[in-house]
Amino acid sequence: MTQTVLVFLDRALPDGRIEDATKPQLFATDLGATRGDGVFETALVLDGHVRKLPAHLHRMTHSAALLDLDIPDHTVWERAIVTALDEYQRVVGPLTEVVVKLVVTRGVEGAHEPTCWVAASAPAPAAKRQREEGIDVLLLDRGYDSDVAERAPWLLLGAKTLSYAVNMAALRYAHAHGADDIIFTSTDGQVLEGPTSTVLLAHAEKDDAGRVTLKRLVTPRLDSGILPGTSQGALFAAAKDAGWELGYGPLVPEDLFDADAVWLISSVRLLTPVNHLDGKPIGSDPDLSKALTEELAALFDAIH
Amino acid sequence: MTQTVLVFLDRALPDGRIEDATKPQLFATDLGATRGDGVFETALVLDGHVRKLPAHLHRMTHSAALLDLDIPDHTVWERAIVTALDEYQRVVGPLTEVVVKLVVTRGVEGAHEPTCWVAASAPAPAAKRQREEGIDVLLLDRGYDSDVAERAPWLLLGAKTLSYAVNMAALRYAHAHGADDIIFTSTDGQVLEGPTSTVLLAHAEKDDAGRVTLKRLVTPRLDSGILPGTSQGALFAAAKDAGWELGYGPLVPEDLFDADAVWLISSVRLLTPVNHLDGKPIGSDPDLSKALTEELAALFDAIH
Repeated sequence: MTQTVLVFLDRALPDGRIEDATKPQLFATDLGATRGDGVFETALVLDGHVRKLPAHLHRMTHSAALLDLDIPDHTVWERAIVTALDEYQRVVGPLTEVVVKLVVTRGVEGAHEPTCWVAASAPAPAAKRQREEGIDVLLLDRGYDSDVAERAPWLLLGAKTLSYAVNMAALRYAHAHGADDIIFTSTDGQVLEGPTSTVLLAHAEKDDAGRVTLKRLVTPRLDSGILPGTSQGALFAAAKDAGWELGYGPLVPEDLFDADAVWLISSVRLLTPVNHLDGKPIGSDPDLSKALTEELAALFDAIH
Repeated sequence: MTQTVLVFLDRALPDGRIEDATKPQLFATDLGATRGDGVFETALVLDGHVRKLPAHLHRMTHSAALLDLDIPDHTVWERAIVTALDEYQRVVGPLTEVVVKLVVTRGVEGAHEPTCWVAASAPAPAAKRQREEGIDVLLLDRGYDSDVAERAPWLLLGAKTLSYAVNMAALRYAHAHGADDIIFTSTDGQVLEGPTSTVLLAHAEKDDAGRVTLKRLVTPRLDSGILPGTSQGALFAAAKDAGWELGYGPLVPEDLFDADAVWLISSVRLLTPVNHLDGKPIGSDPDLSKALTEELAALFDAIH
């Protein structure tokens, strides 16, 4: 099992309270455990720096607001993260590549005080392998139409909640059917997102000499009930600066099959190429797909 | 805060392991807490007897199977429940009215062993008050159509999972809008269920002398993506024996407004009359509604 460093947020301790992750730390009546009632974020630390931390904290605050959950200020989280990374360096190893998870639950039943913690651990080896080799993905019906998020905010579609049982079931479905991951579609046929990632596709146009003259990076429209991806947001900004055109859906599965490349992007696994979708290869020109992946991966790596 | 007795299932201890609920008992890396990945049941103990225990254990086994989760046999749960109730009697008080919660999570990340426990505590006072006084309910869109459960088993619609954030958000929506509870509807306009209960309605027909000649008890069709209610199942069997006609939807909201009485039924709150739905009173004859409630409540009370 990977070694985890735990720091709980604590009103009495501005830098947080280090706890032993090999001992029980949560109450059995915590509404996070009994109701999946809470929110979380997962960020990547590279060489001691937490990538996109403001975007993660901003999204967590937004998720919490959708759940009517009061959470500590960003500065409190930042201090707890510093404590966690110091402790990680002290007891586990260097901060070359570390996953930092921020968790808020509604707290112990009847206590009306959220339980908040930071967990630092090594990334799963599968993330690196999938990023380097690409993945096979299946399309799966998410059961919602693409307008439901605006119509029914109580479905919490824009919140990154702890209620991830369906996302985990979708991943198990993929593994049971020989695939690595899932892209959810809406009942009205739109491409949504992965269970733990955002969908991206690219198109390139070439001139008669074979030089790429236009590159376009596209993601599903953000108001279709998907989670706003912190990685997608950061990569879009970087790609725009590098001369890419940007586009937002609506996308349908045909758009994925017609693309020169498709990726799932997330904070820990980073930019991961989709090799096959429902068994069909993605991209008609493997060299072009590879070049687009390399260019975007370089842009994404440079993000702070 | 209510006093809780905790018994963890433990391979080494066939009767379970009593733990102190006032101390942390769960690991921060338990997938129940970080992913809402698990299942649960809530049963009511009256005068030392766990009502409908076989139905609860049967449903929990079904829920677990939908999540590919191996859980201990019924006998193991039964022994842990006996331990929990003995301990409750010893440290809290008599077993007049006790809520027993059974919880299974996918366990600590990487351990591949579910975490299982039994928690015994007193029922919330609101349950009794709502049952006696009735409740005001709002209709709310669940975002799914009524066919999705069969089409998309990965949505886990027939499983009672720990991922209850949406159910909790729906209840908060009710409270924020001056109501007590919610009845979910499907996108195709069918009546589904409450966030923690099953919907029932009744019709009575009278002859010219005002005597009730026919009583019909109806619930939404069970294949519409709702949880099969253990209370609904037990009450239906008892009502049939008592001469009621039984019916299964599809139901639309108009059917609720046209009914002589509507209830939300669940294991702890029991048969709870709906007074108003979206602000409109339910049942045109209050004496009839009351008589139907009293008759069904008596039938339900007699269930083992």
